[in-house]
This record gives sequence, structure tokens and C-alpha cells, in this order.
Amino acid sequence: MNGTYLDWAATAKPWQDLSAESAALAVRSFGNPSSAHGPGREARESLEASRARLGLSLACPASAIVFTSGGSEADSIVMLSALLRGADRSAVVSAIEHSAVFEQAAAMERLGVRVLRVAPRPDGTLDPRAVADAVRPDTVLVSVMAVNNETGAIQDLAGIAALCREASRGRALLIHSDAVQAFGKIPFKPVALGLDAASMSAHKLGGPRGVGALWLRAPIQVLARGGGQENGLRPGTHNVAGAWAFSMAAARASDSMTEALSRARALEARLLQGAASIPGCLPLPQARAAGDGRYSPYIVPLAFPGLGAETMVRLLDDAGVFVSAGAACSAHSKERRVYDAMGTPRELSFSAVRVSFGRESSPGDVDRFLEAAASLYARYKT
Amino acid sequence: MNGTYLDWAATAKPWQDLSAESAALAVRSFGNPSSAHGPGREARESLEASRARLGLSLACPASAIVFTSGGSEADSIVMLSALLRGADRSAVVSAIEHSAVFEQAAAMERLGVRVLRVAPRPDGTLDPRAVADAVRPDTVLVSVMAVNNETGAIQDLAGIAALCREASRGRALLIHSDAVQAFGKIPFKPVALGLDAASMSAHKLGGPRGVGALWLRAPIQVLARGGGQENGLRPGTHNVAGAWAFSMAAARASDSMTEALSRARALEARLLQGAASIPGCLPLPQARAAGDGRYSPYIVPLAFPGLGAETMVRLLDDAGVFVSAGAACSAHSKERRVYDAMGTPRELSFSAVRVSFGRESSPGDVDRFLEAAASLYARYKT
Repeated sequence: MNGTYLDWAATAKPWQDLSAESAALAVRSFGNPSSAHGPGREARESLEASRARLGLSLACPASAIVFTSGGSEADSIVMLSALLRGADRSAVVSAIEHSAVFEQAAAMERLGVRVLRVAPRPDGTLDPRAVADAVRPDTVLVSVMAVNNETGAIQDLAGIAALCREASRGRALLIHSDAVQAFGKIPFKPVALGLDAASMSAHKLGGPRGVGALWLRAPIQVLARGGGQENGLRPGTHNVAGAWAFSMAAARASDSMTEALSRARALEARLLQGAASIPGCLPLPQARAAGDGRYSPYIVPLAFPGLGAETMVRLLDDAGVFVSAGAACSAHSKERRVYDAMGTPRELSFSAVRVSFGRESSPGDVDRFLEAAASLYARYKT
Repeated sequence: MNGTYLDWAATAKPWQDLSAESAALAVRSFGNPSSAHGPGREARESLEASRARLGLSLACPASAIVFTSGGSEADSIVMLSALLRGADRSAVVSAIEHSAVFEQAAAMERLGVRVLRVAPRPDGTLDPRAVADAVRPDTVLVSVMAVNNETGAIQDLAGIAALCREASRGRALLIHSDAVQAFGKIPFKPVALGLDAASMSAHKLGGPRGVGALWLRAPIQVLARGGGQENGLRPGTHNVAGAWAFSMAAARASDSMTEALSRARALEARLLQGAASIPGCLPLPQARAAGDGRYSPYIVPLAFPGLGAETMVRLLDDAGVFVSAGAACSAHSKERRVYDAMGTPRELSFSAVRVSFGRESSPGDVDRFLEAAASLYARYKT
């Protein structure tokens, strides 16, 4: 599909060479890693090498990594573990979590887990003190994402973890972060941040769909059980080739992170500067400026008041420019939950499109977006 | 890895052309199917075509198929749904289920779901009447596998479904089957069998690891929530390329099923005949004969009394012949749960290796196994 792809936060273009080599690996190392024979051993060795490689990218021991089918499953494993922590327990989540945490929390609420939702500040960041204040004696889980998938807001996980740990007064508290939009894009070292668990996704950084990982400081009790794979933490035959491609894509992302971040900062600046010259167009939050350390430069929301985001996305689509209206998985809903929580006026949030960058994004992409957006906005705004 | 691979029930060799083409598709149709733009649409169209293709293999509408990360996750979705059916509920499972059902049931028991385990007859098949007798007024779920992964025993799902439905007297009862060892190998049409749900795995029939499907007669309430993909039944970004390769592998399996089954029957006969000429070697159950309709010919367990199964598997491995001691995922355990439930003497079950066939299996493979097994058994039995 030709065109200008600026929806890398929904999914990244896979590395072509890793995809092809992974397909060859799937055929070559076809064994079931749980099998006690040659092909099983070969597959197991490949899997463990991938685990070690991924551990390097996360600055953690290989043994702390559980391969999953994606970020959502990693989130789900952690969230559902709260159901096993006895009666009378609560969970703290932010009001701006990805659906994989937010909707999971709502589903657990119906099973008797009390859920406290912490609102962000108007700029989209959470006050660590506000998160810690929600921790009660019965709190068993805190889940706060690393980088918001709609606004790019970077959360102060170290501060949140430290204050929540203090608030828990030594009681067992699992502090989790959905790091899907952080891992491979901005520095993310869960051990150093003081977390207990973190979720990662392969396809957000050029790896395959259907592959992810859960980092765990220490094993937890999990709800989904089966054949005992991944030390009993995630049942199901291993996706050996997928784990390899994920670990390789993560290694590339780690190796090029500094340079890629500086390119993303330049794209962010170019986009914000160009948007400022489109009459009526505003970044979200409005005070967002280029180089603002509170935001990942990979995600930039722009509001076009007077033109609905869904309409703008379709108009841009017709013009061969691909962006999104919020999260991909709520592309068809009218929900603006994250912006509502930030107190953003709906006139702005309902007209906000998300521009997101990836490794192939170029200044030319930004210019094509700006040109198309300016012209469409001028023509169609009401 | 060269050698004689006879562990296709653990995992099948992937189709090389589907693996390569799937890798190309992942790059070409890289969009997130949930995205409302060109690349998203292209990915969505591919996904829906794969769903329709898989529906043909299952003789069901495409809309009844939920793509998952594998058979274990499909099992888990169904099993965990029982937790949402209120207090005071029970589930009926067979005592010979795969761990993905058996261990999941045990985990749910700790959350207050009463679990009734139905023992098989000594031949490894379940008496449908015995399953139905376990259904109580509070039973919300029955789960019985289609083909046992250790013995190859084919269960009378039509009989089980009909009698359980009758026993439930019109109350809501979900009848599920783990069809991982049946789908693509023997005829399996869940609608015609009267089931409500069935689990399938791609890698057992030459598709990719990390891909599976859940067939559902009608939507159910599920525990794991997230971005609303798959009509809210399975969260997580779609594995578009994996779904394609699965649907293609399933179509090939369906198209060649009759011929493949007759080849498998011939291999089964050759194996059983050869085993009969190894002094002391016995099929399990002992009465199993070639062409017996109670068993899938793809799975043949052979006992070598006086030689532990793990030892035999390793000796055969050294000889370049790859089989397993029971299920792959319990390869390292000393458990013989399935045979214990059948009342098989441990002298036999602990010495039983599982030989399993796939599309590349040949009479030569059987002969190589028999030759190696006969010689190793003669040398090492105690």
C-alpha cells in the first residue's frame, strides 16, 4: 500500500529481513521446545537465546521474561492475577490506560475487585502522589502505563513506584506498567524504575504481530493455566520464530534508540511548527511544544476544531495519508475517554487526530501530512 | 535437523511455502486491521478472507470464528467464562483432558467453581452417559476433547452433546471440545456435532505457532477484555499473517483429509504389526488393533515394559528417531494422568512412548522407528 504512513503507534511496519528470516527459522527449528528430543532441543535453544537477547534490551535477566502473544495478553496475565489474591482487594489504575488494562479492570470490578481510577493532570501526566494516595490496605495491584498511546505523555514510573511502595507499607503490592508505547522507543528499564511487572509488544517496534512479553521481577500466581510452559506463567506452545523476530527487532530498536529519538524529536518539531501555521489547528494539550520532555516525540495529537476526527482520518486516507483518531482499537468508537479524563474540551478531543512516527518516518512524510491536512481542513471545517 | 520425526502430535512441520508467503504478507499487509485507513482496511480484508477460509474447513459461518494465539488460549477463553456465570456453578471435564483444560479447571476450582472429572473407560473413550450423569442443575460448562493427545482415542462428541443437553433440561450449558488433535486430521464439524464451542491450533496441522481459533456457536461472556477485537471475544492486535497461514494449512488439511487418513491408517497398521513382532512390546490399550475406529490413526502409543519411557525417548533421540513420552508439555514430568484415569497399569504407562504421524510420515519412518526401538529395547530393558 503506497502512501504516507504516520500511524506507527497503531502498528509499525515489520522489518522485512526479520520477517523472512523468521519464516525460515520456523521451518528449520520446527520442534516443540517442550519436546525432549533433538528438534525440541534445537527449538528450545533458539527460544532461550531470544529470551536472553530480549533481556539485554530490557536490562534484565532472561529468566524475568515471559513470552506472550502480545501486549494485551501480558496486561491480562497481570491484571487477572489480582483475582487470585483473595476477597476484599482493590486495584489502582490510571484513567488513561489502554483498553487492555482499563477494560480488564472494569471486567474485574464485576467480579468483586474494587477499582480506583486515578485521573491525570490536564497535561496528560499523572501526579505520582495522586496514584499513591489511591493505594489502600487492600490494594494488590497498581497499573500505570509508561507512555500514553493517544497523547504520548510519559509517566513518572519511578516516582509512582516509589510512592506506591511507601503507601503500601510493606504489604504485597504488584506495580505494573503497560510499556507497549515505550519499549524500544524511549529508555525503559523496569528494574531501575522499581516496577514489578511490565508489558511489551513486538509489533509496535517492527517485530511480528501476535508476539509480546511480560517482564516480571518475581513469579506471580496466574489465572490461565495449561501445559506449564514459561514456568507455568503462560500456557501454550511457544512461538519460537516470533520470539526470535521480537528479540531481534527489540535489539535493533535499543541499538539505534538515541539516534532514532533525535530524529523523532526533529519530526515532532517540524510537525508542531507546521501545524502552528494551519489556522485553527492546535496540538493537544495546547501547551505541547517541541522537545517537551513530558511527551514521547513519537506520538503527536493535533486538533482540527470544527472537523470531526473520523472525518479527517477518512479525508486524509483518500489523500493517501494514514493517521488515526485515537487508539486503533477504538477507531470505530466515538469515545474520547483519555481526553475526557484530562478535562480536554470535547470540541478539541473529538477533532483530534494522532500522528505517530516510526523508523521510516521522514520530514517528507510530515510535509505531506501538513499539506494535505491544511488543505482538507480549510475546505471541510464547519 | 535430520532424522525420523514421529512426534507430529507435539507439533507438525510447518508448510515451507505458507511460512514464506505469510512472512511476505506480514510486510505487505502490515496495517492494524482495527485502523480506519487504507493499510488497516487491506489488513482487515485479508483477515476476513482468512476467517471465511477457515470457516469452510469447519463447515461453519466465518462469523463463528474467533482467532486466538493457539489452542490453549481458546480453551482458556471458554473455561474462564465459567467464572462469569455467578456463584454456585460447576463444570464437567473429562479426566483425560489436555492440561489446557485440566489444569485450568483445577485453577478455577480454587476460585469456587465445582469441577467434576469424568473417568474414561479402560479403552480411553468416555461413556457419553457418564458425562451426562455428571451434569447437575448448576453445571454451566462441559469440556471434552475430540481426540486424546496421548492415546488417540476419539470421543463420541455427538452423543455427549446430545445427552448433556438433555441432562441440562434447557438450562444454559456451554458444551466445549478441545479439538486440537482432531481438526484437520479427522472429520470435525462442530455444528453437526451439536457443540457450542471448540478449540483449534494452527501448528498441529502445519500452520504457524502462536495461532489458533475458537469456534463459538454464539458469543459468550469472556473474562479477558481489551481493545474490543474479535467482537470483544479476544483482545489484542490481530496476527493477520498468522491467520492467513492457519486458514491455508487448514484448507490443505481438509482437501487432503480422506487420502491422508488412509495413509495414516496404513502407517498405523504397519506400526502395530511391526510392534507385535518386538517381544514384550504392547500397544496401549493392549487391545488396540489397526483400523480400530475408536482411535485416530495419527497417534499410536506403544509400551516397552521394563524400559522407562523417558529413557526410551532419549535412546531413540540418540538414534535420530524423535517420539515423545506422552504430551510434549508434560515431557519433563513423571505424570501419567491419562493412563492412570484409564486404569492402565503403571508398568505399562510409564514405559509408553507416543508415535504420531503427519503429512510427511512414510512407511520408511515407521520401519526406522521399529528397527531402532527393537534393538534398543532388547539391549536396555530390565
